[in-house]
Amino acid sequence: MSINKQKLVNQIKKKQSCLCVGLDSDMSKLPAQFLHDPNPQYAFNRYIVEQTANYTIAYKPNLAFYESRGAKGFEELKMTVDFIRSNYPDIFLIADAKRGDIGNTSKQYAKTFFEYFDFDAVTLSPYMGKDVVKPFLEYTDKWVILLALTSNASAGEVQYFENNQGEKFFQHILNTGQKWGSPDNTMFVVGATKAEYLKTIRQIAPDSFFLVPGIGAQGGDLEAVIKNGQNKDGGLLINSSRGIIFSKNPHRSAKDLQEQMAKLIKI
Amino acid sequence: MSINKQKLVNQIKKKQSCLCVGLDSDMSKLPAQFLHDPNPQYAFNRYIVEQTANYTIAYKPNLAFYESRGAKGFEELKMTVDFIRSNYPDIFLIADAKRGDIGNTSKQYAKTFFEYFDFDAVTLSPYMGKDVVKPFLEYTDKWVILLALTSNASAGEVQYFENNQGEKFFQHILNTGQKWGSPDNTMFVVGATKAEYLKTIRQIAPDSFFLVPGIGAQGGDLEAVIKNGQNKDGGLLINSSRGIIFSKNPHRSAKDLQEQMAKLIKI
Repeated sequence: MSINKQKLVNQIKKKQSCLCVGLDSDMSKLPAQFLHDPNPQYAFNRYIVEQTANYTIAYKPNLAFYESRGAKGFEELKMTVDFIRSNYPDIFLIADAKRGDIGNTSKQYAKTFFEYFDFDAVTLSPYMGKDVVKPFLEYTDKWVILLALTSNASAGEVQYFENNQGEKFFQHILNTGQKWGSPDNTMFVVGATKAEYLKTIRQIAPDSFFLVPGIGAQGGDLEAVIKNGQNKDGGLLINSSRGIIFSKNPHRSAKDLQEQMAKLIKI
Repeated sequence: MSINKQKLVNQIKKKQSCLCVGLDSDMSKLPAQFLHDPNPQYAFNRYIVEQTANYTIAYKPNLAFYESRGAKGFEELKMTVDFIRSNYPDIFLIADAKRGDIGNTSKQYAKTFFEYFDFDAVTLSPYMGKDVVKPFLEYTDKWVILLALTSNASAGEVQYFENNQGEKFFQHILNTGQKWGSPDNTMFVVGATKAEYLKTIRQIAPDSFFLVPGIGAQGGDLEAVIKNGQNKDGGLLINSSRGIIFSKNPHRSAKDLQEQMAKLIKI
């Protein structure tokens, strides 16, 4: 199954939320009570999902935290995805994998995330051009999410590289990436610590959804992000990871964020 | 254990080869006799390694072909790496993963490839800047291999983006990426279908090793690549995947390539 744009927009309206919870379930940070479970990451994720699903429209596990446990981590990620699909079928599922390969290889990655796992979307690095996204977009109602402007300290040395028309590299990716797919199957990662850029970016890609990391631990401003970034569909998935999953009260943390969002969301 | 630059150069001299064999062990292409094995990808890889190791200085499994089988593929990749390490301890092992994330997440990927698996090197996408490579370079005698110029059809629309000094984006990555690490821990991917660029690229990065895909299936010219690309250390790992592993006689195919290489290698 999968969540197309209409279903996603309906969720935003209904829950008055654009919250995406990052399931960055770092084993070294799991609360002690989960460590004795035979499937510690799955047990923890299940707890987080049960605590936060009412306020959340998307979950985004980052593959790194599962792969570092090898085959076992892969299994528990699959259990997590299956659990959410069965119990919360309206919630959008993002594999934060930042893959980016070509041809036959890219096809295998698409198979991994859309068939072995049943994710709705995968984050991809656009470094190798359109060849990266092609095999993913052959799946109906599935999505790619292209890195455009990221929120980390060293992003600028690559993403601000500028051509002689004053176009920065991340703007070039926004312009080019829109031609590879459509707003129905292609989103962009736009870091929240760059809230001042969000107005310009919204002009470049008026109809696209943006996945916005950097709220919480990385210090982005929620109000500025929603005001500058929302469009007629809502158009935003705003991610918080550690700020929710490792907070004292994940239910409370997610509810607080959703309540702040509800005041700003216009659809 | 790990293979530092001196050991790698010694291998090139001794074997008169810069051949890297890509273990892109696509399940749909495995010869029938391996499909009945309980560990088909491992059994196939073991056969390929035994047939080609005398002519080869590096093996490069692409993660996509293993991940698409989920936990099982991960296990067989680990078995493959362990087999090569135990039986051919001088051979350089590259995880062709094209990862690229930051901070805590990047650290987890480094843990995956350098601890869970014992690879010598990982291919990375530099889209997010220096933050991507930092955790990997904290490991002594391990390597990162940054995408610079790739050999696929759509590479240009991203990698040829040019600033007002006429510097192309891939050149910017070569210039910037060298500052993140050193020629002792940082290589670059430079596609062989762009052999005409190799002279310029060698001037930009005189001391770095280049991983060159695109020989064979993608049609790069071996002679031009070695003539334009080699340096005082050899400085090249030239990859062939399908052209060897799915050929009628992998032993013959690897030996042929090595013999052509031996005529051109100057160290």
